[in-house]
Amino acid sequence: MYKNVAGEIIAIGDELTCGRVANTTSRLAARKLFLLGYDFAVMQCIGDDPALIGRTLRGALEHADFVLVTGGLGSTDDDLTTAAAADALGLGTKSHPVLAMRLRERLAAEGRDFDLPLFSRFAVLPEGAEPLDMEGRMAGYLLEHRGKPIWFLPGVPSQMAVLLEDRVIPELQGRFPQPPLRQHLYHSCGLPELDINARLKALAGRPGLHLGYYPIGFNVDVSLTLRGGSAAANEALFQEADSLIRARLGAHIFGESDDSLPEVVGRLLERHGKRLVLAESCTGGLLASSLTAIPGSSRWFEGGAVVYSNRLKERVLGVPKDILDHFGAVSRECAAAMATGALARLGGDIAVAVTGIAGPTGGSAEKPVGTVYLALAAKNGSGPQVQLLHLHGARAEIQQQTMQRALDTVRRALISTA
Amino acid sequence: MYKNVAGEIIAIGDELTCGRVANTTSRLAARKLFLLGYDFAVMQCIGDDPALIGRTLRGALEHADFVLVTGGLGSTDDDLTTAAAADALGLGTKSHPVLAMRLRERLAAEGRDFDLPLFSRFAVLPEGAEPLDMEGRMAGYLLEHRGKPIWFLPGVPSQMAVLLEDRVIPELQGRFPQPPLRQHLYHSCGLPELDINARLKALAGRPGLHLGYYPIGFNVDVSLTLRGGSAAANEALFQEADSLIRARLGAHIFGESDDSLPEVVGRLLERHGKRLVLAESCTGGLLASSLTAIPGSSRWFEGGAVVYSNRLKERVLGVPKDILDHFGAVSRECAAAMATGALARLGGDIAVAVTGIAGPTGGSAEKPVGTVYLALAAKNGSGPQVQLLHLHGARAEIQQQTMQRALDTVRRALISTA
Repeated sequence: MYKNVAGEIIAIGDELTCGRVANTTSRLAARKLFLLGYDFAVMQCIGDDPALIGRTLRGALEHADFVLVTGGLGSTDDDLTTAAAADALGLGTKSHPVLAMRLRERLAAEGRDFDLPLFSRFAVLPEGAEPLDMEGRMAGYLLEHRGKPIWFLPGVPSQMAVLLEDRVIPELQGRFPQPPLRQHLYHSCGLPELDINARLKALAGRPGLHLGYYPIGFNVDVSLTLRGGSAAANEALFQEADSLIRARLGAHIFGESDDSLPEVVGRLLERHGKRLVLAESCTGGLLASSLTAIPGSSRWFEGGAVVYSNRLKERVLGVPKDILDHFGAVSRECAAAMATGALARLGGDIAVAVTGIAGPTGGSAEKPVGTVYLALAAKNGSGPQVQLLHLHGARAEIQQQTMQRALDTVRRALISTA
Repeated sequence: MYKNVAGEIIAIGDELTCGRVANTTSRLAARKLFLLGYDFAVMQCIGDDPALIGRTLRGALEHADFVLVTGGLGSTDDDLTTAAAADALGLGTKSHPVLAMRLRERLAAEGRDFDLPLFSRFAVLPEGAEPLDMEGRMAGYLLEHRGKPIWFLPGVPSQMAVLLEDRVIPELQGRFPQPPLRQHLYHSCGLPELDINARLKALAGRPGLHLGYYPIGFNVDVSLTLRGGSAAANEALFQEADSLIRARLGAHIFGESDDSLPEVVGRLLERHGKRLVLAESCTGGLLASSLTAIPGSSRWFEGGAVVYSNRLKERVLGVPKDILDHFGAVSRECAAAMATGALARLGGDIAVAVTGIAGPTGGSAEKPVGTVYLALAAKNGSGPQVQLLHLHGARAEIQQQTMQRALDTVRRALISTA
């Protein structure tokens, strides 16, 4: 039998309660643990106030099976978590001998002095607490109070993420095994949420099965969760639902789990031995930036031109002046000429060109804000293929949707030639 | 005399506690109210659970002077806030007659039927609650409990922001006038946090004055807050501190309040009648993207080349093959040739070129990851000026810091020619 386990998160820091910094650590922890079957009933942000820290911690221990506390573990004067927590639980604090020794050794090797308060305070923990990183590279410890684990973690999101993954999750799963949960995430592009919903209607209302829809511009993430049955029953239901989702959404699914659209496009380009070039006007470098954010993108990304002015469209890509004069920069003809010009002048195997009106100004009755032409050209292929998009939203949204559609167009071209 | 006023925020929704959606409404409210002198001691996120909603609301009313509750006010089955809150406070619920009438009229005009539960539920409030939008375009009401105001607001961030600004803040300021508060935000680039700290040492420990430092890559935001004195005393102290900050940080300050570095660079380019061109290698379009995110950037941004491959550096910018062979793409010589090539081939008045190793791979003992050359060239100017940067962090951080330094270099060049 499994016990229903609920945790609480307490994030500590004045920078959170005054709204200056977004509380990303709590969301990250909640997401990770939710996917493993642990619920958080309550997530709190509180300021650096010892009495409040104590009251909140005691309150959480009344209701929760485990508690995560983040922030306020450093060595400066506004780091009050350790003293406040020890006080609230009726414990003293003392220097952890092993942690102090390791830290002293490591600092000595770097020519620094452990006995400075800045460093020595770091090893001072509530009595009975066990450090999570015995080398002292990151703050954090586990303290058990009346059978309930309390993890104290750093407020720095990257450090917190490492300790959560390496130390908290394995210990939590050992202490509170959860019923089998089967979950999968599908990433789609090109089909509106309502259409996806209609295509997956056969799965609606199936007991133990939950579908979630999360649109982000042109992309819609679909989550499939199986819960409540045995591992075998969940797996059988998963196989059935997974087959149906794949059959109904087909090539609209561009990836799964942690995949991103730029990564998927990069992998496809590499697999096909093709190099991509870009000719960007209204996206202004966003498309290139999304691709070069990926490590190793030089293997399949040649480069691009951000041809914001008409002069550069002529000069760098060789778009004929006639086209610009006659049809304008935002036209089917210009997009096509940009794509063929990028292939001819920049090289590469596949070229994508985008030109449009991202707004907020620059629109007209004939070509309102959100009018975007997108062209794809391939070396040795037939002439460029041009799409006209009518997009809505603020400037950033129009640029993002154009980027998604451009990447998805490359993806679909590559899988259709497979 | 002013009373020290502390509020609590309770954000309700399973999508928040499972980490799927970031809780942006609480941060927004905290930021707005903090700047007006209201503190939030506690910000909570809780799931759609009536017992928990009731318990949390009662707990908040014990400690706080006012409470903001967001989310769960819609008309679907998982919107439980109104019933749970009424229950927790020992109140019944009933249809608000004026709201119901107005909503009925508005829906009738649109050919829709108020008596559908979807609409009629919308007018059902706890006894004694007053709707914040009597036309019923947005959910939300004010309920007073034992002299403490509780504002129930929609979870949709844009609606919440409107009601906060138009209804909550004026009422809050009427009920709990706050002592005068004077606050200002300075944005700096190029000086490490510790150096800024040292330069502003004269202000440390001044009663009623608080300095905050918030580094983001190469940028450091400095906040100055004056609190506790009369409006006149705060203003006098502000003038003194403001003069000192400006004198000590000088040209390191690039902007104030809502300014961003790309916007400041754009305004300077426009004011000087100069057009910028870019030659990006390791930033891969990020620099162009940060500039073209700004509406109207076509007035001062000509365009750029994302020359990711060596072939494109030659082909688009005319970087001599000798330089690439002899010094490599990540070299002082290549950066200089990229900048002069961008000016010659792309046009414009000022060119910035960046070439470096963003990682995680590609580094060597001689040129480790984070080695970046940045060149600036101006039309009719002397030869290009090249900087060597040694950056640290993940790929995205190295790209971001390179972008900041590049923009700041353009900014400093423009103000020095003023």
